[in-house]
Amino acid sequence: MLKLKRIAIDTHRESIAYLSRACPHYRVDEFQALGKIEVRAAGGSCLLATINIVDDAALLAPDELGLSEEAFRVFGLLPESRVRIAHPKPVESLDALRRKIEGHELDDAEYTAVICDIAASRYSKMEVAAFLVGCAGFMTVEEVLRLTRAMANVGQRLDWGDRLVVDKHCIGGIPGNRTSMIVVPLVMAHGLTIPKTSSRAITSPAGTADTMEVLARVDISTEEMRAIVDRIGGCLVWGGRVNLSPADDVMITVERPLGIDTREQMVASILSKKLTAGSRHLVLDIPVGPSAKVRSQNDAVRLRKLFEYVGGKIGLSLDIRLTDGSQPIGRGIGPVLEARDVMAVLRNEPMAPADLRERALLLAGALIEADEAVKGGQGIHRARALLESGAGLQAMERIIEAQGSNLGPDGIIPAASSKCHEVAAQHSGLVNGIDCLRIARVARMAGAPAFKDAGVDLLKKIGDPVRQGEPLYRIHAGLDADLGFAAELAMQDSGFTINGMPGHGA
Amino acid sequence: MLKLKRIAIDTHRESIAYLSRACPHYRVDEFQALGKIEVRAAGGSCLLATINIVDDAALLAPDELGLSEEAFRVFGLLPESRVRIAHPKPVESLDALRRKIEGHELDDAEYTAVICDIAASRYSKMEVAAFLVGCAGFMTVEEVLRLTRAMANVGQRLDWGDRLVVDKHCIGGIPGNRTSMIVVPLVMAHGLTIPKTSSRAITSPAGTADTMEVLARVDISTEEMRAIVDRIGGCLVWGGRVNLSPADDVMITVERPLGIDTREQMVASILSKKLTAGSRHLVLDIPVGPSAKVRSQNDAVRLRKLFEYVGGKIGLSLDIRLTDGSQPIGRGIGPVLEARDVMAVLRNEPMAPADLRERALLLAGALIEADEAVKGGQGIHRARALLESGAGLQAMERIIEAQGSNLGPDGIIPAASSKCHEVAAQHSGLVNGIDCLRIARVARMAGAPAFKDAGVDLLKKIGDPVRQGEPLYRIHAGLDADLGFAAELAMQDSGFTINGMPGHGA
Repeated sequence: MLKLKRIAIDTHRESIAYLSRACPHYRVDEFQALGKIEVRAAGGSCLLATINIVDDAALLAPDELGLSEEAFRVFGLLPESRVRIAHPKPVESLDALRRKIEGHELDDAEYTAVICDIAASRYSKMEVAAFLVGCAGFMTVEEVLRLTRAMANVGQRLDWGDRLVVDKHCIGGIPGNRTSMIVVPLVMAHGLTIPKTSSRAITSPAGTADTMEVLARVDISTEEMRAIVDRIGGCLVWGGRVNLSPADDVMITVERPLGIDTREQMVASILSKKLTAGSRHLVLDIPVGPSAKVRSQNDAVRLRKLFEYVGGKIGLSLDIRLTDGSQPIGRGIGPVLEARDVMAVLRNEPMAPADLRERALLLAGALIEADEAVKGGQGIHRARALLESGAGLQAMERIIEAQGSNLGPDGIIPAASSKCHEVAAQHSGLVNGIDCLRIARVARMAGAPAFKDAGVDLLKKIGDPVRQGEPLYRIHAGLDADLGFAAELAMQDSGFTINGMPGHGA
Repeated sequence: MLKLKRIAIDTHRESIAYLSRACPHYRVDEFQALGKIEVRAAGGSCLLATINIVDDAALLAPDELGLSEEAFRVFGLLPESRVRIAHPKPVESLDALRRKIEGHELDDAEYTAVICDIAASRYSKMEVAAFLVGCAGFMTVEEVLRLTRAMANVGQRLDWGDRLVVDKHCIGGIPGNRTSMIVVPLVMAHGLTIPKTSSRAITSPAGTADTMEVLARVDISTEEMRAIVDRIGGCLVWGGRVNLSPADDVMITVERPLGIDTREQMVASILSKKLTAGSRHLVLDIPVGPSAKVRSQNDAVRLRKLFEYVGGKIGLSLDIRLTDGSQPIGRGIGPVLEARDVMAVLRNEPMAPADLRERALLLAGALIEADEAVKGGQGIHRARALLESGAGLQAMERIIEAQGSNLGPDGIIPAASSKCHEVAAQHSGLVNGIDCLRIARVARMAGAPAFKDAGVDLLKKIGDPVRQGEPLYRIHAGLDADLGFAAELAMQDSGFTINGMPGHGA
């Protein structure tokens, strides 16, 4: 038997077991060839882990078995506990995974088995990758439904009793599109319940959770979230702690570096989380544009139908809006800059970005109409009234207070980084295109979202006239080096098209 | 800057960098979210690695950067060298990978880029998995050719001058099919050059390298292999040290645990290695049978055409034999038992398995006909003459001597494990089927190939009459526990069909 040792290595959600090459009890190389071992404790608990072999007795003695932090946490035993290791029983759902790779359709039981095993960390990252790529190759709409249900079933389900619980989601891809932070307070102000969870940025310069974190704490447990929503009717928290979809949390650690972003996974991920979050009505924003996630009206309609099919089967009332995704929304891109725009809208400041305000009112209005007392077509007027009266701002202040303010005692939003650089037009004319991907890349290179005060501040939008040399946008960077890299990127291609000509920065 | 430290952890060919969470110079969490970092040395050398975060100053100080053994070896710098870390420039070939996942055809440059990056350990295992599964989804024959060329181009190519270099390969899947160990000595005895590299078992109870290792050392470097082949005209070594296909060596560490085994990867893997090994003539054995890798004549013909197409384009003369794959070949399954059968054939023992002998003679004959001096149809007669005269055995003795004998001074092959159990027929009748997969699984469960003396010894073959209670095969196990598991497996289903009825062991 081996003595359990906690190895203080954080392997980012993958369970790793460390075994000494000098281990006298086992044929270590043979275990390594198979990649995984099963660790068994006297009490019967079991853990599957990927094996790493250690050649340093100071790190691990020959009679010890090390577990990475994640594995140690999942296993839940004390250090020095006695354990055995064994060739793992094959994870049975891997047969289903192989069938998917071979191009077969999987049934309910197979999706359930795969998703349970993923949520329980029984898959290595390469197995998760194989599952995701296999699904990307071929999936029927029925399979998307099965995957959605399976993902929802392993999550912690929230029950809000009789309350009318609504939610709003955007499929993402449009920099600056922070409508949630306006929609949630307006919907709360109307009296509906909206327990909003958001993600952090995956490949973008900011997720709603990153931007909200400029204003308030977002790393909030399920229990605390429940208490907040019970008290004030809504919240704007990070979904990572809420455990709505533990399988999704694992899959995202693979999707992110691989850059996999399929429709099928998107639908299953979004709808499974809404189901476990206890929502009955969902307004979904699908921006369509040449550099958006969805590029054509045709694709948008196909995606809408997939959402509607699955949503209908799981009992979620869906209002899907195909919106203009031709350029970033608002001016700021990056947490601090976006928080500034959001608060400008909520405070009814004259310079607040009109596109952000109108998009938020459209979506808030659609949600407010989930209230049967509101006549069709009146939702947006109600939303506008709540915004203009300051009721929306007050609701946001309640959220910030309830979650814990991150602002100083003066309540002032921090300024964007003073390390900045202006990107100017190479020639005069009318702006007729802004590449969302390019602008996002520049903002990310500048340091967003790791540096909250980094990003891009747009000074021109589509339809604006510019003169040669006039600034198109300002880059704010976290570090001097990042400013150089981001400026260089903008120099190669600013992302702006002026008079039909793609512009280099000048 | 950080100080480089070698961390004595063997991560099985994946480059891992260890960074302290207390590192004062970098935002560690942000690096982890992206999964990978680039390590840069003053001299300009760069390494891509997956990041693990360390929370133990004894293991790693805040100003140190640790590298796993594989990463340290690849990077090639001294401990305490000063390094910086950075967000990696995206591995450009990942764009090609994403295109493959989306179902596109990739061109030559894209396959070259992906394979170079895989061979240079610039892909994480999940990226390798994504590539393999993406390829499994859809690949044109042109793509298989591109993949084959790309894999051959990153390998170390062997040049044998004017010699007539031939090779023999079996796609595997049939337990006991150790013809290489008979074909190679016979072909050498005829005077052709045959530098044979073989694999170890992946999911089977033995690979040719595992079985050959019972007789001689097989873990041999390229230089040593060259010297042996120059001296005696052939060898039977493990391919893992020879570096014929470094990309394949990485991919196999992912294919193995995932159980991916597609035709396209098979063709590219086999033919790329034959190309770098410098062979001009290849005899390829494709067994066809209900439990073989190839199940129908139709599939076999499709696979043959794919081999022929790619082989023809890369200038390899291919003689493909579709053979009977309805049951295991020979009697023994597992390294020691197979070595016993092989030597019985070479020694012309009366009890030597005839099916193994005849299969080997067929394939050796086909190779001998690569010699223009041998008339069509005469190869097999020449092979039989070389076997019967003892010239084959003498050639095998030269190989054993040249590679270094693993046998004792008496030259006797070790016996199979004495921990054994006989599996008996449940009813009387004629054996009319033996499930290769089932028999392989029983042999593996018994401990083969980790325990060289473990495996299955078949006492009946298809067409043999059996009485109820008569033994069908004997299981030899490495450990008592394994004997129990293997016997239990055979009890559920012996793998034998008698009079059309699948048999349970009794």
